[in-house]
Amino acid sequence: MSVRCVSATPSAYQYPLLIKQLLLTPLATVPEQEITYQGKIRYTYRTLKDRIGRLANLLAAHGVQAGQTVAMMDWDSHRYLEAFFAVPMMGAILQTVNVRLNPEQILYTLNHSEADLLIVNSEFFPILAEIAGRLETVRTVVTISDEAAPPPAPIAAIGEYESLLAAAPPDYDFPDFDENAQATTFYTTGTTGNPKGVYFSHRQLVLHTLGCAAALGGAPRQGHVHREDVYMPITPMFHVHAWGFPYLATMMGLKQVYPGRYQPEVICRLIAEEKVSFSHCVPTILHMILNHPQAAHTDFSGWKVLIGGSALPEATATAAQKRGIDIFTGYGMSETCPVLTVAHLDSAALARSPEDQSVIRAKTGRPLPLVDLRIVDDALRDMPHNGKAVGEVVVRAPWLTQGYVKAPEASELLWSGGYLHTADMGNINPAGYLKVTDRIKDVIKTGGEWTSSLQLEDVISKHEAVHEVAVIGIPDEKWGERPLALVLLKPDHVGKVSENALRHYAAHAIETAGISRYGVLLQVRFVKTLVKTSIGKMNKRLMRADPEALCL
Amino acid sequence: MSVRCVSATPSAYQYPLLIKQLLLTPLATVPEQEITYQGKIRYTYRTLKDRIGRLANLLAAHGVQAGQTVAMMDWDSHRYLEAFFAVPMMGAILQTVNVRLNPEQILYTLNHSEADLLIVNSEFFPILAEIAGRLETVRTVVTISDEAAPPPAPIAAIGEYESLLAAAPPDYDFPDFDENAQATTFYTTGTTGNPKGVYFSHRQLVLHTLGCAAALGGAPRQGHVHREDVYMPITPMFHVHAWGFPYLATMMGLKQVYPGRYQPEVICRLIAEEKVSFSHCVPTILHMILNHPQAAHTDFSGWKVLIGGSALPEATATAAQKRGIDIFTGYGMSETCPVLTVAHLDSAALARSPEDQSVIRAKTGRPLPLVDLRIVDDALRDMPHNGKAVGEVVVRAPWLTQGYVKAPEASELLWSGGYLHTADMGNINPAGYLKVTDRIKDVIKTGGEWTSSLQLEDVISKHEAVHEVAVIGIPDEKWGERPLALVLLKPDHVGKVSENALRHYAAHAIETAGISRYGVLLQVRFVKTLVKTSIGKMNKRLMRADPEALCL
Repeated sequence: MSVRCVSATPSAYQYPLLIKQLLLTPLATVPEQEITYQGKIRYTYRTLKDRIGRLANLLAAHGVQAGQTVAMMDWDSHRYLEAFFAVPMMGAILQTVNVRLNPEQILYTLNHSEADLLIVNSEFFPILAEIAGRLETVRTVVTISDEAAPPPAPIAAIGEYESLLAAAPPDYDFPDFDENAQATTFYTTGTTGNPKGVYFSHRQLVLHTLGCAAALGGAPRQGHVHREDVYMPITPMFHVHAWGFPYLATMMGLKQVYPGRYQPEVICRLIAEEKVSFSHCVPTILHMILNHPQAAHTDFSGWKVLIGGSALPEATATAAQKRGIDIFTGYGMSETCPVLTVAHLDSAALARSPEDQSVIRAKTGRPLPLVDLRIVDDALRDMPHNGKAVGEVVVRAPWLTQGYVKAPEASELLWSGGYLHTADMGNINPAGYLKVTDRIKDVIKTGGEWTSSLQLEDVISKHEAVHEVAVIGIPDEKWGERPLALVLLKPDHVGKVSENALRHYAAHAIETAGISRYGVLLQVRFVKTLVKTSIGKMNKRLMRADPEALCL
Repeated sequence: MSVRCVSATPSAYQYPLLIKQLLLTPLATVPEQEITYQGKIRYTYRTLKDRIGRLANLLAAHGVQAGQTVAMMDWDSHRYLEAFFAVPMMGAILQTVNVRLNPEQILYTLNHSEADLLIVNSEFFPILAEIAGRLETVRTVVTISDEAAPPPAPIAAIGEYESLLAAAPPDYDFPDFDENAQATTFYTTGTTGNPKGVYFSHRQLVLHTLGCAAALGGAPRQGHVHREDVYMPITPMFHVHAWGFPYLATMMGLKQVYPGRYQPEVICRLIAEEKVSFSHCVPTILHMILNHPQAAHTDFSGWKVLIGGSALPEATATAAQKRGIDIFTGYGMSETCPVLTVAHLDSAALARSPEDQSVIRAKTGRPLPLVDLRIVDDALRDMPHNGKAVGEVVVRAPWLTQGYVKAPEASELLWSGGYLHTADMGNINPAGYLKVTDRIKDVIKTGGEWTSSLQLEDVISKHEAVHEVAVIGIPDEKWGERPLALVLLKPDHVGKVSENALRHYAAHAIETAGISRYGVLLQVRFVKTLVKTSIGKMNKRLMRADPEALCL
């Protein structure tokens, strides 16, 4: 192939895709648009631009150079948004630290990423106290506090964010550089081993933003995200850039609302007072919000909520719709920036009942533009798209991590055969909707066939007595593995339903739904609690290790 | 700046932005979606994919290699759409020949681009007959015909498109290559000198498609282009890729309607029968359609029409709205791929009267994401954005031609100072809406001040007797130049209004509108006809040369 590449006249601007350019349109068109932190702090995009400049000047004055790493420990805030822009725009790398990891893991990620400067909220001083003496590369600390009288920092700090910002000049000449420059890094929260670092370039984040804008803007009605929306994240900004939506919201010039630490009463208040119309979260968080007493007095109608991170039970989708929420699902993971698919409904589907709509709303979605998403067997051969055949989801897109930080073997495994391996199992129907059924490691192998733990969970969660459920595989002499449902009952149903009754209910529902014939081998146990990961997902690895310990 | 570029594990797919990838989503999600040519030929996206493969095989079998140029002479058709994909996807370059140029100019562009293979509709055989002996590089010709018994080709051809396609296999392994590979070229239709060639890469066309999707998708209501739209171009596919919308429509999986040569009765029929909901055209074409007898019986309601190419008179915008058309303006040119801005209305503006809406609908719009659009003085200094101060529009975006073909001096002039110079004059208001007032060369310099010919045209076009108007500058001893309005009256107003009466009307309206005080020096002459360029724009250069010749 000898293609002819375009030649550029010497004066031509060969536009690199850089994060700073996401700010062009909002500053040119809606400079007075609002950004608020909890409704308590409120400023305009014009001020955002100034504060981004101030932050860059502050960091540069304290020796942060291009290629170095600035780590951030904060809840969702305007300050985080400022760092999303200022740090990469100066050519440095933003490490978004998962503050829900334990202190040892946080220490591991800060040392592993070679973080140079740390911006830390006083809420996390106890963590910092535990690890301060063992930080190998951090040489500068900036503190943040929402408190009038914050506690003293357990480590020498150069000062507090707001006062340092006020002292720094607002103008910073953000340079052009290679669009493949690394912009961000963060660590995935696997259930085994040390956290693994992923990383994204300016080019990747700009393309992810455009891809999401194209997908969410192209929706005819349902799930249409537009320039009059009010955006509030409820997926942490430390978790895959809050799914990239702060970049999207900024490029589109939306009003933005940052809620701080997720407290249901604050979230309900902000939705009402700030007229939030677009958010995203994991099912557990939505569950938590809708079940809070404050929710009974909150009008959620017209609130678009994109669900991801784990499967959305259809029952939750129906309950949310009945509250007026436009709930739908997306799919992605830390390694994929993250968004790969979105499950929009067309006009015909919107005419159906909430229950029928939930079947689509709870699917994992259809690929974004430029996303090459396949389901394949072990030899990377395509499985048929008939809505039944299950294969591993593998993908190519312009915004996937090109490896793991300092982990060449895991990186090659991730990209085996030139496709990123999600380790998710799923089917694709003729309309192109992906339905992720399980993590590869969560599939239950019974009698030599794969049974989907998620399908079984979906069936059981529809029982009126069930609050939450996790289905795991337990060793079985005859079948290899057989499924076990760990069920947390709703408080007012405890003692009114038996494990046996629920098992019969499930077996019947499984047969009716036409799920794997081995599903009927399901056992049911009531539990005191379910084990979750730091970001609210079911931790099946731990539950498998000793299910008996959880049971009533 | 030593940024840290992301490193890729050896097996990682480093996704180049290639036109073939625009096909991924529609083929995965709506393979049965329709594409029709005049309602006479109808096939699915699945067939489009096959025909793209066949076309590539056909071209390859006849020696077309990566880096070579395939020229196309056709009206808007499914065949053109196939070429939009197949030619660049095989690494070759598609030259979209402006069939409205005169034969000598067409010959010039084919030789200048070094076209290797020519695909030509039998309608253009008369042109081909004139130039056949003087084609310097074309060595293969493929004919197209919509006729049952087409005339013989005036040059040796290898065969007819449909039969050659049928004989070629549908599978072609389109390779990956450098995203900066040239994908398209075409020649601008200036009013002076030889046509100038511009060129666009795969990367640029993909980014232009994403940028348009983000801008049109982000509209809250007005001008929202979405996945249930039916698309029909009414800007020729040879003219700046039909503004890039065939790529957008394909990426979004829209139903597509190709109308062939623009005949108002066919266009009206297709709008009604195929339920066309999104088109784009120059004001003259819309004028032609709406004034055709067939239009009186056509329901245009809900038809979104993006106007560009020349200024939209507010009166036309109001008339279109009253027919139920969602009319709005975009801005760009051959050199810019083309779209730079779109003039969407927010919900507040939509509540106003059609006349008030027309003020915004007829503006030139707000910049797309990533578009850095400025108005500047001679020294590239920014003019204030107060809706009044006028400067030259200069721009940076990821999709601008990096020069002119084999014209280094013109290329450097185009990119002088690192910004692409549009040679358009305009103002920007505080809400970021650009209003292009004139081409630099169409500005009238009266008494040392700039007077906008377009503003004067806008004023005069509102008079009930006026069918069309062009305002030009004519030499004047006292004032340097003074404005002259060449007015084409509506047939039923001829003889009922005098030039003097119209001059008084205009002078009054100009004072009321607060336009340049020298506007009142305007003279009015009635004309038999107005001179237009090959693509329907006013040719003011020719009219300035001898205005007297046009007058009644």
